[in-house]
Amino acid sequence: MHSLSKRALCEGLGTGLLTTAVVGSGIMAERLAGGNAAIALLANTIATGAGLIALILTFGPISGAHLNPAVTVSMALKRVIMWPPAAAYIVAQFAGGIAGTLLAHVMFAIPLFSVSHHQRAGVPQLISEFVATFGLLVVIWAAVRANDSILLIAVSVAMYITAAYWFTSSTSFANPAVTVARSITDTFSGIRPVDAPGFIAAQILGALAATILCTWLFRLPPVQCS
Amino acid sequence: MHSLSKRALCEGLGTGLLTTAVVGSGIMAERLAGGNAAIALLANTIATGAGLIALILTFGPISGAHLNPAVTVSMALKRVIMWPPAAAYIVAQFAGGIAGTLLAHVMFAIPLFSVSHHQRAGVPQLISEFVATFGLLVVIWAAVRANDSILLIAVSVAMYITAAYWFTSSTSFANPAVTVARSITDTFSGIRPVDAPGFIAAQILGALAATILCTWLFRLPPVQCS
Amino acid sequence: MHSLSKRALCEGLGTGLLTTAVVGSGIMAERLAGGNAAIALLANTIATGAGLIALILTFGPISGAHLNPAVTVSMALKRVIMWPPAAAYIVAQFAGGIAGTLLAHVMFAIPLFSVSHHQRAGVPQLISEFVATFGLLVVIWAAVRANDSILLIAVSVAMYITAAYWFTSSTSFANPAVTVARSITDTFSGIRPVDAPGFIAAQILGALAATILCTWLFRLPPVQCS
Amino acid sequence: MHSLSKRALCEGLGTGLLTTAVVGSGIMAERLAGGNAAIALLANTIATGAGLIALILTFGPISGAHLNPAVTVSMALKRVIMWPPAAAYIVAQFAGGIAGTLLAHVMFAIPLFSVSHHQRAGVPQLISEFVATFGLLVVIWAAVRANDSILLIAVSVAMYITAAYWFTSSTSFANPAVTVARSITDTFSGIRPVDAPGFIAAQILGALAATILCTWLFRLPPVQCS
Repeated sequence: MHSLSKRALCEGLGTGLLTTAVVGSGIMAERLAGGNAAIALLANTIATGAGLIALILTFGPISGAHLNPAVTVSMALKRVIMWPPAAAYIVAQFAGGIAGTLLAHVMFAIPLFSVSHHQRAGVPQLISEFVATFGLLVVIWAAVRANDSILLIAVSVAMYITAAYWFTSSTSFANPAVTVARSITDTFSGIRPVDAPGFIAAQILGALAATILCTWLFRLPPVQCS
Repeated sequence: MHSLSKRALCEGLGTGLLTTAVVGSGIMAERLAGGNAAIALLANTIATGAGLIALILTFGPISGAHLNPAVTVSMALKRVIMWPPAAAYIVAQFAGGIAGTLLAHVMFAIPLFSVSHHQRAGVPQLISEFVATFGLLVVIWAAVRANDSILLIAVSVAMYITAAYWFTSSTSFANPAVTVARSITDTFSGIRPVDAPGFIAAQILGALAATILCTWLFRLPPVQCS
Repeated sequence: MHSLSKRALCEGLGTGLLTTAVVGSGIMAERLAGGNAAIALLANTIATGAGLIALILTFGPISGAHLNPAVTVSMALKRVIMWPPAAAYIVAQFAGGIAGTLLAHVMFAIPLFSVSHHQRAGVPQLISEFVATFGLLVVIWAAVRANDSILLIAVSVAMYITAAYWFTSSTSFANPAVTVARSITDTFSGIRPVDAPGFIAAQILGALAATILCTWLFRLPPVQCS
Repeated sequence: MHSLSKRALCEGLGTGLLTTAVVGSGIMAERLAGGNAAIALLANTIATGAGLIALILTFGPISGAHLNPAVTVSMALKRVIMWPPAAAYIVAQFAGGIAGTLLAHVMFAIPLFSVSHHQRAGVPQLISEFVATFGLLVVIWAAVRANDSILLIAVSVAMYITAAYWFTSSTSFANPAVTVARSITDTFSGIRPVDAPGFIAAQILGALAATILCTWLFRLPPVQCS
């Protein structure tokens, strides 16, 4: 077991690079796509899915590669992780996500901070975030229960998100830290700050619903705290 | 072994999310593609293939992840599953599929029910469905015979469907439950209700033909009923 | 070990479905792509790569899934397979390939036979076929030497062909049986019959060169005939 | 253990084919894409990622499949490889890269040598190369530390580069040998010779920074020289 500081650093670094992949590829895709939003989202999807596989394989053996406060909360509820380290993970994820957006801005020569004007609101999109995060947690808990290898976990999560980018109207943020990080970029992947709290609430509710379902469905055993 | 109710629930949940992936990504793809049907089908293909990998890895260890009445019938014919649980699986698959379409409609703010006007008819398309389902069952029986891991099964099936979306003129529904579910959406992935029975008949015939071929070709052993 | 008739049947069925994937997805892609050849080739590439993974995983444990006379000849030269069964494989591959094109025509409602008018000629394209087949055999021999699992073989071959579709000017036929089968379709993936012999000669030369290199490079052990 | 001459040959052959994949697919993509740069980069990305998987699986068991002087330098700094063989690797990588560009030119009927006029300059692009190579080395060291199989290493590296093509403004060269090789092609993937030294310096700095971080983060053990 690595020290908590190293594990939290990995969560920050991983969530940061994930956010850079999402925001950066969105900027690149929009610049090149000549106005065809489907091509832009396809490039954004491929970069995100590929990035997730690489990041989960890289950081999974150290920190578990949650890279997502909704995942960490669900894990803490089932005592896969204790609450104090969970809190450290979550702080690192939010900080890393914001740093990831800033890094994307630096690499694409965009002003460091910008407030998104991309409206993402309405009940259908909130339901989308609930469904997206619910599905993500079902995928993850099934993998944890089956004692899957890190390769299977990485592939499951990345393929799920790849699909969910397209089958939800919100393009599946499904991650509170990345949602906050995407509110400070006025680019392809941005979200208005005013829309972020609703997204995050829907994500947390989806994660809670999945945790309850999986506890019953997968007969999750009582878990030892690390 | 999980209880039948949990296994059937997994079949329903899995078939539902698969249908949501197919229908939802079709809606998103058509909205964004600016009229280029190849880009729309490419996005639809990637979302379906990725979703299949995630869903088979997630539900495979519980229910076997048939997610398809044609698969369940073939498995029951070879007594991999007994007929009573097979019937429960099939009911859950049809119900899940319909629920999956409705969920996609909710997320994309479309009226809950709509009848498809997408004509998919003619002998070439029926032959396509026969071939698509025949090939799918050959892929699955080869994997079962080789005692493949769930990763290999998931990859085989998803890659097969990814290819079949493009090499058949019907885009390979290859699944009676998903065919019914796609008849109640007047969007990219829809099929007119009047065309659905022919598709389903061709799918069942294709599955039967593959089951007969594989019994001889792969020397399928007599299977114990669970 | 399965009987030769079953193994040859698998080679025919596998090469046939591979050809159907190549030709069929080419027809679908060209119909939908609205004149953008890059999008059409991208769809053709994805269908071919995905199909290869599914087919190698399916038929690999039975026949070895050569699906390609250039591979079978190289294997026979190194006595991985004896010449009489190799001859049966090759006959099955050519017959399967032609049947695969006809099946694609039936599914897309095209006249059963048509002669391709797609010119693919000139020294750069011949060098492309030499390089493509040379690289394919290096990839395969490295996998055989490392005693790779069928998953690794399938992934190596499919990813190699995915790349080679784009990095050669001929789009990497790299397969004499598929080359003949593509000469009788006047669609996206076709090749003029007059251009086929040159392609096939270049492919055989590339396979021979790779076999010689790999014998030295990978210290291939003497192989027992089955 | 293979002889150094064979291992260096594999590094040259692998880096050469990687460069051919990058440069050749860039030429093909630009020719077909009809001016849509996003589609061209998508094809270029898929060919590069797929090629990386095939090449690492092929040459990994022989030479380690560094295929990149920045990787070899980092490995030598941690004494995974001694400096004399590292020097041989690096010479082979640069020679192979240049040969790979020439081969692409031959296959696409382009004059053998051409000087790129593609400007890639400015601090944001230099930071991009630093970040791209830093991330690549973190991915690789994490895999080495976890004693990952060659499949996991190939998937990690290929998926990372697939993402990085899109999330950096430089499209992630991240490889000094490939950078030099891309300076002698006036095509899609080219880079002006005057811009190459800055890219290479940024890549080396990124590799060094990652090596230092990983030494602490992953508690890299002292490594025996081979």
